[in-house]
Amino acid sequence: MQGNLLYAQSGGVTAVINASACAVIETARKHKVRVYAARNGIIGALREELIDTSKESASAIAALRHTPGGAFGSCRFKLKSIEQSRPQYERLIDVLRAHDIRWFLYNGGNDSADTANKISQIGKALGHDVKVIGVPKTVDNDLAVTDCCPGFGSVAKYTAVSVLEASLDVASMAESSTKVFVMEVMGRHAGWIAAAAGLAGKSADEAPHIILFPEIPFDEETFLARVKATVDRVGWCTVVVSEGVRNKEGKFLSEVGTRDAFGHAQLGGVAPLLADLVKQKLGYKYHWALPDYLQRSARHIASKTDVEQAYAVGKAGVEYALAGKNAVMPVIVRSSDAPYRWKIEPAPLSKVANHEKKLPKNYISRDGYGITDAARRYLEPLIRGEDPPPYGKDGLPKYVRLKNVAVKQKLPAYSISD
Amino acid sequence: MQGNLLYAQSGGVTAVINASACAVIETARKHKVRVYAARNGIIGALREELIDTSKESASAIAALRHTPGGAFGSCRFKLKSIEQSRPQYERLIDVLRAHDIRWFLYNGGNDSADTANKISQIGKALGHDVKVIGVPKTVDNDLAVTDCCPGFGSVAKYTAVSVLEASLDVASMAESSTKVFVMEVMGRHAGWIAAAAGLAGKSADEAPHIILFPEIPFDEETFLARVKATVDRVGWCTVVVSEGVRNKEGKFLSEVGTRDAFGHAQLGGVAPLLADLVKQKLGYKYHWALPDYLQRSARHIASKTDVEQAYAVGKAGVEYALAGKNAVMPVIVRSSDAPYRWKIEPAPLSKVANHEKKLPKNYISRDGYGITDAARRYLEPLIRGEDPPPYGKDGLPKYVRLKNVAVKQKLPAYSISD
Repeated sequence: MQGNLLYAQSGGVTAVINASACAVIETARKHKVRVYAARNGIIGALREELIDTSKESASAIAALRHTPGGAFGSCRFKLKSIEQSRPQYERLIDVLRAHDIRWFLYNGGNDSADTANKISQIGKALGHDVKVIGVPKTVDNDLAVTDCCPGFGSVAKYTAVSVLEASLDVASMAESSTKVFVMEVMGRHAGWIAAAAGLAGKSADEAPHIILFPEIPFDEETFLARVKATVDRVGWCTVVVSEGVRNKEGKFLSEVGTRDAFGHAQLGGVAPLLADLVKQKLGYKYHWALPDYLQRSARHIASKTDVEQAYAVGKAGVEYALAGKNAVMPVIVRSSDAPYRWKIEPAPLSKVANHEKKLPKNYISRDGYGITDAARRYLEPLIRGEDPPPYGKDGLPKYVRLKNVAVKQKLPAYSISD
Repeated sequence: MQGNLLYAQSGGVTAVINASACAVIETARKHKVRVYAARNGIIGALREELIDTSKESASAIAALRHTPGGAFGSCRFKLKSIEQSRPQYERLIDVLRAHDIRWFLYNGGNDSADTANKISQIGKALGHDVKVIGVPKTVDNDLAVTDCCPGFGSVAKYTAVSVLEASLDVASMAESSTKVFVMEVMGRHAGWIAAAAGLAGKSADEAPHIILFPEIPFDEETFLARVKATVDRVGWCTVVVSEGVRNKEGKFLSEVGTRDAFGHAQLGGVAPLLADLVKQKLGYKYHWALPDYLQRSARHIASKTDVEQAYAVGKAGVEYALAGKNAVMPVIVRSSDAPYRWKIEPAPLSKVANHEKKLPKNYISRDGYGITDAARRYLEPLIRGEDPPPYGKDGLPKYVRLKNVAVKQKLPAYSISD
């Protein structure tokens, strides 16, 4: 087919975003369409820093399926409204036109769906016909319309497995050592990842014993009472806390905690704060963990369901684009919990853009510290299955590093602050 | 054979200590010897809280091989010298005698080797013949005589894989977001785990770019210069820091860092301190991770070499005991780096007890921030091979929980503070 396809990654990367990239390139190759990738996301598109993926071998592209991170670079950069930054949109269309780009696939979250939607509109207005497709991705699982988001299943699996393993450790030591273990997980605005931790245990005595959600205001007294009751009953206690947990005034706990002598906020997350609170008020020995990027890049423990869905949305994205669909996103539609069944369907970007899918109220148990059966029915299929990467003789996963050969520039240099 | 065997776990647990337990029980069963396990380590032995492992099925015991944590409980409790706490040693011998225990296998580190050695002596003095065997275990890899310690290879693999994965994440985002990533690893007294992180990269531009060892006094100026040079050259920088890193005065950085308004030490580890230092002095956006117990319990990413060695020392321990050997430890002897060859041999407990194996000076690069080829030759075989646990339909590893049926007590109750 005539014309080229541009693929760009956006926002925080995941363990499986490259599986979507793999699908995009493999599918486009089947249709003899050349794929350019923007270096560092939309920033590279604006700067005309494009990568020619046709320079990569089939095996290198296949290896993207099992390689975490963003193979072409991503960015945190949001285009403003067309009114506010019309020159940026015009520049973008200039770049697309200069490289005969007829299809643009933007792999990201809420903001990216919005940007993709706007690019589609401005292209039409400026007389360059480009089909724009959003490809869903986010560990936060907060995209509207789609049943779940590629990237979430793997961080959910990492989190549940880590809580299970660390809790076996704590259980072994509790008689004479650590009695309370606090693990902090991502999710500043919604408790999806915290909820996934709940999959590690099936009964009240199994870890995690307490989950602190951003959706539930933190109450020190009730929390401490529950920690004590758990230690009294079980002998130890595992707490999973979302980085986004807030006090009754709506302020992040991590920001209103202890301050140092200079009035700076306590460095680091909410896990050490809670652990210290437990020590001060209840006297228990504690440990805490904050896996940070480890959780969203842990391709070695990716969910097979997640990898398959990440691939499926990339593949569908190209198929939609080449079929002439515009301003849509391939979303995951669940038709059954048990057996778990899903399919991919197109949804208008306008329905996805700028909405946020919250954790449903009926996913949090009435006491506010755990998950319900409804949450389990939703979450459990998403962490199902393993898809380990191949390993080398050196004991490490064989993650690919692409050559990322630059496409020759045709336009004058451009500074993003213009 | 006549008599029973007692097995106890000691100190911090690992991803593979239960593989040693599995080997002990499977090997003893082959010889028709009953294995009792001490509940929560030596504390349970003193309290006469014994577990009858003959109540567990063969499949449950086999599953110990892939289950992290300490299946019977462990403890942090060190018996003092015989002069200081003779009643405790006498009580221990009473318990062994009451349950016809002729063989005692103590699975732990330096302290445990010392305790095992003393128990062997006091048994003889008190007329109860018990063969005492130390079984090596520690993520710290600091046991003398043995080439490496079961438990270390798996934490080493977890650490190298995690650094590799998180660094791919950072590399993707560096253009517009996080430029410096700091990951804190265990190892209060020796930099073995920090060194293992170095396996993630093979050249100067690959992560980790900077490793901070407990063996090298921290120098703020040189460190910051190196972070800046790395960001200038590579675009981003991954720092791995041992929890045990100290300043020039020999004080732990984590203890002399920022103090809060009440004079308390800054909560949490050294990673957030360094990350904040980088932000204050160089202005880079940062992230940091502190996996804590996750690193030593990550059975899902265990090293196959490590699992095999953990099993081998447990098996040899029983064979030595039943053959009448006393006060020895099965140690790992390396006969070749490439191809990697190892075997198990007995070593006197007296040679292992109370010694500490330091990271050799020639394993740290001359600039103090990386590892040498000698270190790679030593470390690389230890993380080689994968041995994933079986997974259930729920997407979680199938870790076993034993019934841990108590053996009927025969002696008067005993309080450890006696």
